[in-house]
Amino acid sequence: MRHRAPFRLEHGLPTPNAGDKLARMFRLDSYLESRRKSVEAALDFILPSADTPPARLHEAMRYAVFSGGKRVRPVLCVAAADAVADKAPHAAEAAAAVELFHTYTLIHDDLPCMDDDDMRRGRPTCHVAFGEATAVLAGDALQCLAFGVLADAGMEPGVSSALARELASAGGSMGVAGGQAEDLAATVAGATVESVARIHLLKSAALIAAATRMGGIAAGASAAQTDALGAYGEKVGMAFQMADDLLDSERGEAGGETSCLSVMSAEDARERIAALTTEAVAALARHLPADRTVPLKAMAEWLAGRKA
Amino acid sequence: MRHRAPFRLEHGLPTPNAGDKLARMFRLDSYLESRRKSVEAALDFILPSADTPPARLHEAMRYAVFSGGKRVRPVLCVAAADAVADKAPHAAEAAAAVELFHTYTLIHDDLPCMDDDDMRRGRPTCHVAFGEATAVLAGDALQCLAFGVLADAGMEPGVSSALARELASAGGSMGVAGGQAEDLAATVAGATVESVARIHLLKSAALIAAATRMGGIAAGASAAQTDALGAYGEKVGMAFQMADDLLDSERGEAGGETSCLSVMSAEDARERIAALTTEAVAALARHLPADRTVPLKAMAEWLAGRKA
Repeated sequence: MRHRAPFRLEHGLPTPNAGDKLARMFRLDSYLESRRKSVEAALDFILPSADTPPARLHEAMRYAVFSGGKRVRPVLCVAAADAVADKAPHAAEAAAAVELFHTYTLIHDDLPCMDDDDMRRGRPTCHVAFGEATAVLAGDALQCLAFGVLADAGMEPGVSSALARELASAGGSMGVAGGQAEDLAATVAGATVESVARIHLLKSAALIAAATRMGGIAAGASAAQTDALGAYGEKVGMAFQMADDLLDSERGEAGGETSCLSVMSAEDARERIAALTTEAVAALARHLPADRTVPLKAMAEWLAGRKA
Repeated sequence: MRHRAPFRLEHGLPTPNAGDKLARMFRLDSYLESRRKSVEAALDFILPSADTPPARLHEAMRYAVFSGGKRVRPVLCVAAADAVADKAPHAAEAAAAVELFHTYTLIHDDLPCMDDDDMRRGRPTCHVAFGEATAVLAGDALQCLAFGVLADAGMEPGVSSALARELASAGGSMGVAGGQAEDLAATVAGATVESVARIHLLKSAALIAAATRMGGIAAGASAAQTDALGAYGEKVGMAFQMADDLLDSERGEAGGETSCLSVMSAEDARERIAALTTEAVAALARHLPADRTVPLKAMAEWLAGRKA
């Protein structure tokens, strides 16, 4: 039976025990739950209340942010900070900024002129609930708020500017926005393994890599550690997106031209997900202590193997 | 005849001479022209080329940014920097960030679900030229790029984070995005002097005040100088918006519910513009040397008295 050294968490959770899989799964749940709570508290603190004018805009922003999401990106951000230091200053703000940014992209992706989705997470999408104009503005304001959080005067300026650099680089025309543009332009006939991987990288993995890099930066990581966390995030992000494509397919939903299943078999996809997850975990091992990366490792496995 | 001390400009332009109005106007033109050129060069450097993938998105971003605008906000930003120091480091980047941000708001304001405008500055609007989805994404990516420019690693981190704080605060749900939300919700019947002024403040003046504050910050202004530049910008911004309403009315265009002419006469508006311009110039006098603020004073008069 292998033993792992204990790792300390902000909320005093029990140490994961690799020897007891059931217990470990349970404790991953506790870890996720405690980190989600920190992130939600930060988001609630940061977002203007729904009765602050302009009230309807703030209501729409809160509706989209508090919609029962899994908080995968911000929790990865905090877990990356946990891999570097205890109680990293501003990890929660960095995580909240990532989630605000991610929420803005979801609102805009759902718009009639984009993916035209009426429902998300079992509820009407923002433009269905609040109208298209308010949805566009809610997304716009959330992106602005994400950068505003990172520019907060309470943050050490060097950290503030490094965090903003990561988010801007992952989120812009050569990241999330560019990925969505390429996604909209993609055709089933033209899809290749490379073109699908490129869209997954830009649309999903870039922001997840930014999240884990930002967690590291908020915790004072060295450049090598930040890069290791970014490599982990990118690979986990690619695996996560492919796992999502598999889930959609198992539910009988058409994955469209940018599903990995339009260019490979489900079996090949599963193999690729497993390889990416192994590589993600291996990237951490070179620059971060094993006892601190237990949550990131558990999350990589969780995200690769999610069930509907 | 009054004499003003000479002020130095980056590009070695002749000193304005207040005693010769014609010459001064001509030199204001030269000043505007030289500053516009700096701003356009910075924008051209910052924006990815139109053949960098995703090419159509980058083409749309460039189409919207290089559309023959007057560059009022970025030139005010640079003029504010000139009021504090010669050749302020990063004033051009701060100015470019403001213009990228402003361009994003114009693209989104023109969308069918917002103001539904087909033409801007004599050309088809971005969504008419590139489609609605690309226009939304071009706006999104321009906002992201605006913050990315400010987070540039070449900038002193304290300045970088202070600049981003200004832009985020002026641009978000309690600034430009909020102003557009209130504008869309406004009705002619409900318009009051106060409600129209509030929308002008949020939608226009807040970003102009941010521009002049950011110019000051980029040039190492003291807090008192930055506040003076912000007060100038806010008042000039309010006057500029009212002058725009007057221009629209003289052209026979309906100003709508948020035109100041829906709540006051043209004569009252002209008086208010003159008062705001006087107050704007007075705000500068307390904290900045008179010889350095000649361009800002000339711009305030220009913006208040523009002709169609």
